[in-house]
Amino acid sequence: METTEPEANVTRIMLAVNESSIKGYPHASISSRGAFEWTIQKIVRSNTSGFKLLFLHVQAPHEDEFEDMDSIYAFPEDFKTMKHRDQTRGLHLLEYFVTRCHEIGVACEAWVKEGDPKEVICRQAKRMRPDLLVVGNRGLGPFQRVIAGTVSEFCVKHAECPVVSIKRSPGETPRDPVDD
Amino acid sequence: METTEPEANVTRIMLAVNESSIKGYPHASISSRGAFEWTIQKIVRSNTSGFKLLFLHVQAPHEDEFEDMDSIYAFPEDFKTMKHRDQTRGLHLLEYFVTRCHEIGVACEAWVKEGDPKEVICRQAKRMRPDLLVVGNRGLGPFQRVIAGTVSEFCVKHAECPVVSIKRSPGETPRDPVDD
Repeated sequence: METTEPEANVTRIMLAVNESSIKGYPHASISSRGAFEWTIQKIVRSNTSGFKLLFLHVQAPHEDEFEDMDSIYAFPEDFKTMKHRDQTRGLHLLEYFVTRCHEIGVACEAWVKEGDPKEVICRQAKRMRPDLLVVGNRGLGPFQRVIAGTVSEFCVKHAECPVVSIKRSPGETPRDPVDD
Repeated sequence: METTEPEANVTRIMLAVNESSIKGYPHASISSRGAFEWTIQKIVRSNTSGFKLLFLHVQAPHEDEFEDMDSIYAFPEDFKTMKHRDQTRGLHLLEYFVTRCHEIGVACEAWVKEGDPKEVICRQAKRMRPDLLVVGNRGLGPFQRVIAGTVSEFCVKHAECPVVSIKRSPGETPRDPVDD
């Protein structure tokens, strides 16, 4: 990775990522992956030394025995030392994105936090002060949104930093569009 | 300007810009300039050949005698040939942004359209299919928003492309925050 710019001067983009509700255990949701790919292809482009990506995954409380909430993961090796991989659902997710960033050559950090996703994302955005927060969005219609709720709408309204919501492409919509 | 990447592959960012309501005639609004500076500093950065900026200014109907709605402006020289500069309020605005882009070395195009700004912006975004739409935002509180309305909220909700709304920094708020 090039380090031609001091870190204080990079553009820091926070990505809120979550797990898929359809493909089971260790996969990132379709909309999370779409938001990540959009960020790399449309914003970072070839300027990998100009950006740092901050991945945040928020887990609902007591979802599993995960005890390692305050660790920061920035290198693929950081995940290899883990003993109880099967207990740490969120980390599989972060490992995917951190590994992709290292392949591409863009700096990153990743966290897991516990709580209500929409509130924790806004709180972490306030704490970290990213230049941009990118959230995926299933692109549901108004009726489906009432049922499913949307984290992205809440963040667009309440986060203190600029927010962009990336809609899932129609071609990637699963059979039940509330799934992701 | 470097042209190392073919244009089909650049990231196209549409910026909706408007005139200041306080400083009079030819100036861009504080929030328009803030949205532009954010785009340059945080997104384009040093990668000037990777981006193209599309400036759209929407004028209310019959605001003046402007007859040149369908022209496209991409170079500072495009503005020099105009005869009736005083009749073309929106063009001063576009000239400012086009000149800034040429100083920086980033490709751009600029248009004026007539109509209701929020609807025209969404319609043009649908037509142009930018990768990102950037709109300035006065950062008004809920009470002021009811009175003043906000174009950015409408675009975030209705535009078909990703949208980011850039709040005016508190230090730049004029005496009457509804002004811009």
